[in-house]
Amino acid sequence: MSSSWGDKLRISIFGGSHTQAIGVNIEGLPAGETIVWEDLLVQMARRAPGQDRTATTRREPDEPQVLCGLLDGVTTGAPLCAMIVNQNQRPKDYSQLKYLPRPGHADYTAQVKYGGFQDVRGGGHFSGRMTAPLVFAGAVARQLLDRRGVAVGSHVVKIAGCDRADPAFDPVGLTKETLDRLNREYFPVVEPSVREAMRVAIERARLDQNSAGGQVECAILGLPAGLGDPMFDGVENRIASLVFGVPAVKGLEFGAGFAVSERLGSENNDPFYMDGGQVRCRTNHAGGILGGITSGMPVIFRAALKPTPSISREQDTVDLRTMADAKLRVTGRHDPCIVPRAAAALEAAACVAALDLLLSN
Amino acid sequence: MSSSWGDKLRISIFGGSHTQAIGVNIEGLPAGETIVWEDLLVQMARRAPGQDRTATTRREPDEPQVLCGLLDGVTTGAPLCAMIVNQNQRPKDYSQLKYLPRPGHADYTAQVKYGGFQDVRGGGHFSGRMTAPLVFAGAVARQLLDRRGVAVGSHVVKIAGCDRADPAFDPVGLTKETLDRLNREYFPVVEPSVREAMRVAIERARLDQNSAGGQVECAILGLPAGLGDPMFDGVENRIASLVFGVPAVKGLEFGAGFAVSERLGSENNDPFYMDGGQVRCRTNHAGGILGGITSGMPVIFRAALKPTPSISREQDTVDLRTMADAKLRVTGRHDPCIVPRAAAALEAAACVAALDLLLSN
Amino acid sequence: MSSSWGDKLRISIFGGSHTQAIGVNIEGLPAGETIVWEDLLVQMARRAPGQDRTATTRREPDEPQVLCGLLDGVTTGAPLCAMIVNQNQRPKDYSQLKYLPRPGHADYTAQVKYGGFQDVRGGGHFSGRMTAPLVFAGAVARQLLDRRGVAVGSHVVKIAGCDRADPAFDPVGLTKETLDRLNREYFPVVEPSVREAMRVAIERARLDQNSAGGQVECAILGLPAGLGDPMFDGVENRIASLVFGVPAVKGLEFGAGFAVSERLGSENNDPFYMDGGQVRCRTNHAGGILGGITSGMPVIFRAALKPTPSISREQDTVDLRTMADAKLRVTGRHDPCIVPRAAAALEAAACVAALDLLLSN
Amino acid sequence: MSSSWGDKLRISIFGGSHTQAIGVNIEGLPAGETIVWEDLLVQMARRAPGQDRTATTRREPDEPQVLCGLLDGVTTGAPLCAMIVNQNQRPKDYSQLKYLPRPGHADYTAQVKYGGFQDVRGGGHFSGRMTAPLVFAGAVARQLLDRRGVAVGSHVVKIAGCDRADPAFDPVGLTKETLDRLNREYFPVVEPSVREAMRVAIERARLDQNSAGGQVECAILGLPAGLGDPMFDGVENRIASLVFGVPAVKGLEFGAGFAVSERLGSENNDPFYMDGGQVRCRTNHAGGILGGITSGMPVIFRAALKPTPSISREQDTVDLRTMADAKLRVTGRHDPCIVPRAAAALEAAACVAALDLLLSN
Repeated sequence: MSSSWGDKLRISIFGGSHTQAIGVNIEGLPAGETIVWEDLLVQMARRAPGQDRTATTRREPDEPQVLCGLLDGVTTGAPLCAMIVNQNQRPKDYSQLKYLPRPGHADYTAQVKYGGFQDVRGGGHFSGRMTAPLVFAGAVARQLLDRRGVAVGSHVVKIAGCDRADPAFDPVGLTKETLDRLNREYFPVVEPSVREAMRVAIERARLDQNSAGGQVECAILGLPAGLGDPMFDGVENRIASLVFGVPAVKGLEFGAGFAVSERLGSENNDPFYMDGGQVRCRTNHAGGILGGITSGMPVIFRAALKPTPSISREQDTVDLRTMADAKLRVTGRHDPCIVPRAAAALEAAACVAALDLLLSN
Repeated sequence: MSSSWGDKLRISIFGGSHTQAIGVNIEGLPAGETIVWEDLLVQMARRAPGQDRTATTRREPDEPQVLCGLLDGVTTGAPLCAMIVNQNQRPKDYSQLKYLPRPGHADYTAQVKYGGFQDVRGGGHFSGRMTAPLVFAGAVARQLLDRRGVAVGSHVVKIAGCDRADPAFDPVGLTKETLDRLNREYFPVVEPSVREAMRVAIERARLDQNSAGGQVECAILGLPAGLGDPMFDGVENRIASLVFGVPAVKGLEFGAGFAVSERLGSENNDPFYMDGGQVRCRTNHAGGILGGITSGMPVIFRAALKPTPSISREQDTVDLRTMADAKLRVTGRHDPCIVPRAAAALEAAACVAALDLLLSN
Repeated sequence: MSSSWGDKLRISIFGGSHTQAIGVNIEGLPAGETIVWEDLLVQMARRAPGQDRTATTRREPDEPQVLCGLLDGVTTGAPLCAMIVNQNQRPKDYSQLKYLPRPGHADYTAQVKYGGFQDVRGGGHFSGRMTAPLVFAGAVARQLLDRRGVAVGSHVVKIAGCDRADPAFDPVGLTKETLDRLNREYFPVVEPSVREAMRVAIERARLDQNSAGGQVECAILGLPAGLGDPMFDGVENRIASLVFGVPAVKGLEFGAGFAVSERLGSENNDPFYMDGGQVRCRTNHAGGILGGITSGMPVIFRAALKPTPSISREQDTVDLRTMADAKLRVTGRHDPCIVPRAAAALEAAACVAALDLLLSN
Repeated sequence: MSSSWGDKLRISIFGGSHTQAIGVNIEGLPAGETIVWEDLLVQMARRAPGQDRTATTRREPDEPQVLCGLLDGVTTGAPLCAMIVNQNQRPKDYSQLKYLPRPGHADYTAQVKYGGFQDVRGGGHFSGRMTAPLVFAGAVARQLLDRRGVAVGSHVVKIAGCDRADPAFDPVGLTKETLDRLNREYFPVVEPSVREAMRVAIERARLDQNSAGGQVECAILGLPAGLGDPMFDGVENRIASLVFGVPAVKGLEFGAGFAVSERLGSENNDPFYMDGGQVRCRTNHAGGILGGITSGMPVIFRAALKPTPSISREQDTVDLRTMADAKLRVTGRHDPCIVPRAAAALEAAACVAALDLLLSN
């Protein structure tokens, strides 16, 4: 079921880039949870388009409307469905995409799968815009997590074309304060000066009719040890099955991640020690997950995001009407770099996964 | 449900390292499929322990017994359950692990989750031995895939401590012949001379009472375009949710993977072109997956595997009886490097995912 | 996941009796299917309140709005979400139900489950109004079924207090014409004169501040043999798991149903015979299902619906504030008999189940 | 997934009437639960064939072997898989069934679905023998339920051809003592004298080369109020999706069941009252379930079981080789009445559903 995810907490996402509305139905929320609307809007704003030149110039207020599930701002235990009306539509921009698929985008595979009936406008259900309902669900989950002592945050580690990287999270000493500062920012970085360098690189790509990939690191702090299940229902499996649903993600690693493949056991094992009556690890190469189960250390993952495939310079493609080689010049509004906004989506995925884990326990 | 996975094809895995038996129940296999026993044993042998010095010295014939689902070697459409009796048991080796959890292993998290009732012998249900039923399921799936023109193979890309890497698959020109040669080998590499260098590195780790991590690249060839679904049921999501069930996997990337985060759109997009009436891509940075859906190009992923946490040199840990710092020296038989045997498990995961995709279409 | 159902076709229902809107997200619809709006409204009208005196006097146009998934009236393959705005709200009617639970209703169990945070207005998510999104989903499914030669219809068999019963469907000779006539009616009966007698009984109950139960028989015609799976995914299991989601259903039987418990094998077995090259059964006590799998004969089931628990005569209950016995007199608008409108909901369940079966094949 | 069922507790059943073995993999059992082997065998014995003349003369000790999941008789939290070896096989009896399908049995539908590759021996995966693994799973669940104050029992209400019925459970005053007496019996009845009359009716059918249907009533006592979810995950939906997996079940009703369709609201509503500080109902027409959620009253359901389709008198069928009408005389060993043994299977379904409900809470 492509657009549904979850176990005790379940989300079902609907909509497309230019449909009348997009949204999400959230099942399994406990009753009696107050949802603070302002905090929710903070998260929506982090992902909303049109904020600065690093993002698409499309402007959408992205104000969600709750259709059900809240009574006086408190969850009722029934499904909570929220809708975001698509106001700013320019469907004409996309007319050619049905026959001239954009390299790197889902235009071609959607054409094969749906036989030409798919909604090509703005990528339809494959649009990065589909992360708006995910961010909504994550923002709801985040408030419940916060009450249970769990914090989620992320930062942009690198942007293609920028030779500076943001310093990685301290996987052992990471604090809630750091995450709570980052998780309200539009373009979160640990070291503020890096942000400007990254913006320059994105702007350079934009002016060059190009786009830039990047990498985001995300952390979940405060999960108790013992959550998750062995084999296919481990914390890594669950997060992965959500995170690869964020468009453009092509790689995912936990803790030391790919670096483990360069290491010996004595370098990679995280020694246990007692810390004030609590079992902790001196290092956290495992990213807080052992055997698929939380260890009580911070859960840390990094996702690689490809550059937006929609670039305005001319590209080679095929014409699906004539089945001949063709040239394509993409018009319309597109993000030169999705990475800063994707941070909000990846955090949302982490929030949804973390709450599902807590509720499934 | 931790040990079950799948949609149209569903596997349910059972057993532990030292239980009476381990096995898998496979639901959803089409009826009328001949299962060639010898080919199945080839796959089981690739993962079986005790083959050379790079692996544990535990010897298990790993001869599966089919309990149901086959009639005269042909699938009946009913669940196919296979069991492998654990013959070589040395439960005494593991007695201390309940109180002195191995760093990097699931001993501690299992203790928290199961309150001390978990089966600590050999890691129980968290053992790498649980990949044997997965390999069995994959070997069955592989035979059905083969009849449908789909080939799956892998190779060991790198081993920690070895300065040589195996050359990456050609993501565009990869052939079935290459995969069919690799997927019958115990320690598959594209360039044979690399294998010996890797073996030397593993042996060095073993003699040093240490272990080595590594990386495996896996490919699925012959899947038609149009398989998979958007968002959370894409090909990446499905493969990820299986692959992170293979013990020791800490990272996963598709196509160019983490390299996309260093790239501009013009570098990363795969241009379409017509090739004998067929739409193909000149490059394959997408790893054969666009918008979660197969493009018809080879599906390629790489997994990072951490070094076996069980090393015999002394390590810091805690004593869960006294809740005090402690020292641990792991005894028992352990792989100094799981990576060559994990290749068979990762291919099995790819086979199961690929058949599920085909049957779900 | 309480309000989601399905496998290849999946519905996720949201809303409550007095929330801003109710609706359904439908995943898994094939692309390229034209949805005829008028036919859809015919089904919505069958279930809509306020049509005659046998139903609640609440009036809702129940005009659905499609938020996504249709492009020029044709399915795109992406989730199809539809919303129905709740216009006619009288929330004041329900204030006392939180503390004085209605006998026979979910007020008390919801209070226990949701700790007082549930939406009591009109029964919230437990309201019969939640069948409106189900009817919408069924009406969409019905159009796809129709194109595939499958017809679904039902009739009201009996109403409590009426001594006349509608003649049962002929389980062997039932025709598409019969179903297509019935499945557009508000109060479907095979023998029209029975309807008036039933209406009189309902009106009698209403005037007596009472309500009436009843029974509906439903048929699915045209399903090919071979659909469904053994054990827990048989046709009966699937239909049952949906049908018991229609409020008030307390019993369900297939084919001869409970009558089989009075029979000998020679009386109950349906002999096979050849009919124009096709295998058919001379009788259809099995209701078209053998071993959970369709036989090609009409699928027939009957559901028993309890009388609406909301009756205006005084009843015994408890006061959950004082935990003492109390009296309750239910006010507000309520159906004296849900059965005629429930026929539309039961057909919708049958349509959803039948399409899921066809698509899962 | 035909042979899997469950949410927090999940069972995956395998095997066929004459395969090497049958069994079940149970996931989600809490760790630390002692399983008393003798109590388990009591349940297995209730369903085992060959006990008296009312059942098949096939004799199977049905001694399960646990392959994993128990350590010193205590659950480890890992999947518990049990296998029962099929010892007494007479495959020759069934050779003709592939071409001469038995009326009322799954032979024909399996032939269509599996294209002739299905295992026809004894009905294969469609055999009543598949309830043995279900009874095993139920017997395990029952021990956990017992520790949590929940009792499950049933009795045979009627047998076709017998003019005496067993008195229905008192839905309000039913005691744990009654259930605990019944749930250890092979042919449970409330009024012992009825059993002999039923046995006579079954024996009459057997001598007449016929078979007899019947009805079983089952109760779950001690479930707290508040379990289950609205719409499609209610207690009725869950029990129904399991119970219709017991072969021969064609009808299912909860509480007053089909009788509700004859009633007015004032007759059917169960008035609440306070009883020693606890909310209870004076009647229990709802069968302990309101809005899909337990009310704290006994959960009661009845299932109708059709007469065994395998009867030895000559029947009309078709020859699937020649596609012509044919005659069939079933040989082999068959139950003249499955109902007494089915009671154990229905209780097992109730135990599995009840434990899943408790664990999902």
